[in-house]
Amino acid sequence: MLGYAFMGKAHSNAFHKIAYMTWPPPLEPKLVGIAGRNAEAVQEAATRYGYEYATDDWRNLVADERIGLFDNGGPNSLHAEPTIAAANAGKHVVCEKPLGRGADESFEIWRQVAATGVKHMCAFNYRFVPAVRLARELIEAGELGEIRHFRVRYLQDWGDDPALDTWRFHADEAGSGAIGDLMTHAVDVARFLNGEVATVSGFAKTFIPGREVDDAAEAAVEFENGSVGTLEATRFAHGRRNALQWEINGTKGALAFDMERFADLQVFKQGGRVRGFTTVQVSEADHPFAQHWWPPGHVVGWGDTFVHELHHMLDAIANDTDVAPYGATFEDGYRCAEVCDAIVRGGRQELRYRTV
Amino acid sequence: MLGYAFMGKAHSNAFHKIAYMTWPPPLEPKLVGIAGRNAEAVQEAATRYGYEYATDDWRNLVADERIGLFDNGGPNSLHAEPTIAAANAGKHVVCEKPLGRGADESFEIWRQVAATGVKHMCAFNYRFVPAVRLARELIEAGELGEIRHFRVRYLQDWGDDPALDTWRFHADEAGSGAIGDLMTHAVDVARFLNGEVATVSGFAKTFIPGREVDDAAEAAVEFENGSVGTLEATRFAHGRRNALQWEINGTKGALAFDMERFADLQVFKQGGRVRGFTTVQVSEADHPFAQHWWPPGHVVGWGDTFVHELHHMLDAIANDTDVAPYGATFEDGYRCAEVCDAIVRGGRQELRYRTV
Amino acid sequence: MLGYAFMGKAHSNAFHKIAYMTWPPPLEPKLVGIAGRNAEAVQEAATRYGYEYATDDWRNLVADERIGLFDNGGPNSLHAEPTIAAANAGKHVVCEKPLGRGADESFEIWRQVAATGVKHMCAFNYRFVPAVRLARELIEAGELGEIRHFRVRYLQDWGDDPALDTWRFHADEAGSGAIGDLMTHAVDVARFLNGEVATVSGFAKTFIPGREVDDAAEAAVEFENGSVGTLEATRFAHGRRNALQWEINGTKGALAFDMERFADLQVFKQGGRVRGFTTVQVSEADHPFAQHWWPPGHVVGWGDTFVHELHHMLDAIANDTDVAPYGATFEDGYRCAEVCDAIVRGGRQELRYRTV
Amino acid sequence: MLGYAFMGKAHSNAFHKIAYMTWPPPLEPKLVGIAGRNAEAVQEAATRYGYEYATDDWRNLVADERIGLFDNGGPNSLHAEPTIAAANAGKHVVCEKPLGRGADESFEIWRQVAATGVKHMCAFNYRFVPAVRLARELIEAGELGEIRHFRVRYLQDWGDDPALDTWRFHADEAGSGAIGDLMTHAVDVARFLNGEVATVSGFAKTFIPGREVDDAAEAAVEFENGSVGTLEATRFAHGRRNALQWEINGTKGALAFDMERFADLQVFKQGGRVRGFTTVQVSEADHPFAQHWWPPGHVVGWGDTFVHELHHMLDAIANDTDVAPYGATFEDGYRCAEVCDAIVRGGRQELRYRTV
Repeated sequence: MLGYAFMGKAHSNAFHKIAYMTWPPPLEPKLVGIAGRNAEAVQEAATRYGYEYATDDWRNLVADERIGLFDNGGPNSLHAEPTIAAANAGKHVVCEKPLGRGADESFEIWRQVAATGVKHMCAFNYRFVPAVRLARELIEAGELGEIRHFRVRYLQDWGDDPALDTWRFHADEAGSGAIGDLMTHAVDVARFLNGEVATVSGFAKTFIPGREVDDAAEAAVEFENGSVGTLEATRFAHGRRNALQWEINGTKGALAFDMERFADLQVFKQGGRVRGFTTVQVSEADHPFAQHWWPPGHVVGWGDTFVHELHHMLDAIANDTDVAPYGATFEDGYRCAEVCDAIVRGGRQELRYRTV
Repeated sequence: MLGYAFMGKAHSNAFHKIAYMTWPPPLEPKLVGIAGRNAEAVQEAATRYGYEYATDDWRNLVADERIGLFDNGGPNSLHAEPTIAAANAGKHVVCEKPLGRGADESFEIWRQVAATGVKHMCAFNYRFVPAVRLARELIEAGELGEIRHFRVRYLQDWGDDPALDTWRFHADEAGSGAIGDLMTHAVDVARFLNGEVATVSGFAKTFIPGREVDDAAEAAVEFENGSVGTLEATRFAHGRRNALQWEINGTKGALAFDMERFADLQVFKQGGRVRGFTTVQVSEADHPFAQHWWPPGHVVGWGDTFVHELHHMLDAIANDTDVAPYGATFEDGYRCAEVCDAIVRGGRQELRYRTV
Repeated sequence: MLGYAFMGKAHSNAFHKIAYMTWPPPLEPKLVGIAGRNAEAVQEAATRYGYEYATDDWRNLVADERIGLFDNGGPNSLHAEPTIAAANAGKHVVCEKPLGRGADESFEIWRQVAATGVKHMCAFNYRFVPAVRLARELIEAGELGEIRHFRVRYLQDWGDDPALDTWRFHADEAGSGAIGDLMTHAVDVARFLNGEVATVSGFAKTFIPGREVDDAAEAAVEFENGSVGTLEATRFAHGRRNALQWEINGTKGALAFDMERFADLQVFKQGGRVRGFTTVQVSEADHPFAQHWWPPGHVVGWGDTFVHELHHMLDAIANDTDVAPYGATFEDGYRCAEVCDAIVRGGRQELRYRTV
Repeated sequence: MLGYAFMGKAHSNAFHKIAYMTWPPPLEPKLVGIAGRNAEAVQEAATRYGYEYATDDWRNLVADERIGLFDNGGPNSLHAEPTIAAANAGKHVVCEKPLGRGADESFEIWRQVAATGVKHMCAFNYRFVPAVRLARELIEAGELGEIRHFRVRYLQDWGDDPALDTWRFHADEAGSGAIGDLMTHAVDVARFLNGEVATVSGFAKTFIPGREVDDAAEAAVEFENGSVGTLEATRFAHGRRNALQWEINGTKGALAFDMERFADLQVFKQGGRVRGFTTVQVSEADHPFAQHWWPPGHVVGWGDTFVHELHHMLDAIANDTDVAPYGATFEDGYRCAEVCDAIVRGGRQELRYRTV
């Protein structure tokens, strides 16, 4: 594990729970080593989460032959080099989003890692929210018909303070602001549910003078399937702590989700007098991921999405199956970055995707 | 009254109710004449709503000296000529939205009517939803601080049928589709609550081959006050019958509204542990328009917005006060049209407004 | 019309709107006379609502041969005598709820009026909320299967002030407090949707020392169909202005309603993965009462329930059809009173209903 | 640990997570032994959750001197004897609800365990839902003023099948049905937030012929603080999987909760124009339990209530602090049973509580 803070905690917790909640687990995770810049903090994290050792040099993890999976939860500037090095060392790799600081770096990570043949996953954990996965399954089953609209916004509100400082505000470490942090999630959900983006017409916005990265981004969007909608990401939507909200409208039905009602999917089907959105609490026995957890009506939490996500990765490793399409690969990470870069360029942009 | 269908019914009902619900009324409306193309239908409407006479030629209304207020609820192609003629005849005028079929026609209506000195109102009735008016008052009182975001979408779903035919799908009669019908409402609410639009980056979309008008429109938007967001209007959002949804986020608070919860305003204020959106049912004694109606907790309906709107117009006439800023004038109708035209042009557009 | 205040306004507005909104109307209402205790106030009401004359003696209305329908919206102590007198004079009668001040008086009103052969309606207007009527129709159609539960609470919060004084707090004028005012509505909805009450186990409660009437009432309830649940009515539920909330659960489905979301019915049907309550905005073309109003998605308000209710009464008169089962008769008014009295008696009570 | 099924899984997961999520933990849990009737299943559970050994005789756990905390998650008929034996052996004890099969058995468990001086907790985990704990803290701080009403219902829908069989339907193993399973939770929440119950007026109901236990229970209730309301518990509320819903109304404010919106507390405070319930997503830094988890807006799940609950117990053991009032003791378990028994007796019952 690279990183011991927010994502380090989330991933470590998931590895622990996979061992007994997803029973039998595809692989029994062993927490070998954890790396971080602050030697004291990373040592405490190793003690806390049960890693065998701590190190302040990620190269020690890359060199450790006992490690089969390298999980990169470090800041964005530490995504490319360690992830590529780990893959070159033959380790499967998980990398937090955004994959790189822009489309070029993301493409390079994908290209070089893909060449090694290891399994790679970009950690878009919202694919593993039960409601989001159920949405994907309903769409795949044709329940929505021809898609007309997709709109998504990822609203947070912690960024509106000139005195705040974190690596997330520094261009060299973060690459971008709300774009890389939130818009990537929005675009990944859009692509996961509605396919590739064809054009964007929008812009990025920085509210705080002197801030190196964007605070918000807005776009009108066309998809390759002919549907249209909007994309939004912001750290300045006061009142919305962590609201990933999306809606998709098709000729036969529609779906809507708001992460402020984490457990629920809103489902509309054309019908008779009983016409409207049905609030589905996604915890039934035949709902995604429910087999790992509790009886119907007993919901999981945000942290549990990582259990689903890393279980998926371990399963792909154990059974040599594809990470795609239910997990995001580095190709997905790269394609999100192309959309984000196009929004930053501003005005109307047609998307062009590179291939390896 | 010009028009006897949907808007003719809505306006006639309002004139009746003003006489006893808004007590004492600023003026006692007398329903003199009603005009429409179908002689039999307009005669039935006159009987039904209690107009003294029916006519199939609106010029008869313009020529009738007893008529002091000309209310135009006809199709868009009948907005310009009758409205201008009535104003030239010295009558105050109400005209349904969109004011004209595009910015040029809208400008001409405004320019010529303004020159006559009569009162003019563009019938953006959603300004007269109690929740929307309360929002305006809270914003004016500075409760939101500096505005960061405004997003609005007007979602309907009745247009997705190639076999449907109505004047609303014909370019000559309607001028545009979802743009003039719905996006004007969205833009008017945006301007009413958040001020002028500075740039739009978007496009219009027609899904049905051969349809003469747009089915949907999408845009990213910057406002003159520095806030950013999205605009959307569509007749293809399956599952949403009549969902005008908007949200505004400022440094001190936020507001949200969904017409599917017609009576409610969502209000967020920065605070302590009790942090979140408050659902305000806008029917308290000190809430807008409540003095005309019932005790707290007894809500009004969609049709009652026209009572508020036309009461406002009668009050402006009786007391020679301004229709603006709580009512929309023809200048507002024109400015909305400029924003709409800019979306239709596509890509990034800076707004330029003409003045008279 | 007897009464010019809250109910006088609500009923007068309805008679006006019936004339043109429910087209063609079953009968064209003519507002002949209005009675009330305060001569000045009743005269202003006559002017305002367009009654031909005002009187401070209801006997003048009873004696007026032009009056065919006597609508009693006076205080509870004025329900029995004028209503019975009007019926004896051959007039059809509408009487506000509660029918009488307790079961005995209610029974007498029913017995004497029924003997005259006129049409009688007890004005339980919530039967005429579109969502409530749709619920009734779905239940009649067997959509819920065998009923297991019905629970209802009518929550208001205006009564918690020792300094307040109104006729509603005086035992001689009101008969009871929350019981007659709110519990009657709750019980009527229960009976309308789920049939007769078999037993209640509960009590009434007065919070304010010296207040002559109850402030709240609570009961556990068994219905004749074997289902069980709770009944509650209160003027002390701070935070709830006018929340009539009920839910019914059957083996095949369930329905729920909250008057704070006036337009919506929540509908649950057993099914597959899409399992949950559907929020139905009751304004579709095939929904109850929609034929009188607007296109789908344009909701009516609280005041419009009286349009539906009095239209139903005029229709029964014009076509000599039964007020029951969709309207409440005086028998319904009496039976509600029996349930209410049983709650007041306290402890477990089996219901015994008298017949005429 | 006694029990390896639903509660065994929930508790074992909690012990694992306490070790690293609540950092530093008050005590580092070691999973020594697990007992259950089915030798094969309990052995698999030991392997899965990491217990050192499995046994089909709980007496082996009682005899094991390394065990300091005995956690009883077995069926109700196995609550009394093992729990008392463990306490007599000097072990601290946690026992799932209901404490015993009725008030008499519950009293005996409390009396005998209290005599030993060990720490005891009855596992009412809903006290440890963040929203419920925040409610308690707001009430303790006087935010609600004088309480007028408390109503609670615990609605599930899995029981309406005559073919179903589980120990929960057998009188000897379960003692009761919805009463012990669900009403105890409802009563505990009521007591936790609103204090002691003074009278109940209600009944229990069995729908399925031949079923040995109750399927539902209904009651009107008075509290010692003078407030009144209703209690309901059922396994027959079709459409409601796991809906623990309660509301409390006081003179200065009100609170409401619905477990179908697990993360949220609804908070009403008297105020000005912005009047209504505020939806508080209970995940802010200064909200209960948040210090263990994620940034604001990232919610926990149902399973995490056990982390909070058992952390509280370990903390009480480590620091020799009281389990009460935030955790439920065996006295709380007993008092809930008295209320439940009173409902079963039917009609109006005044509560009498025994003391040790």
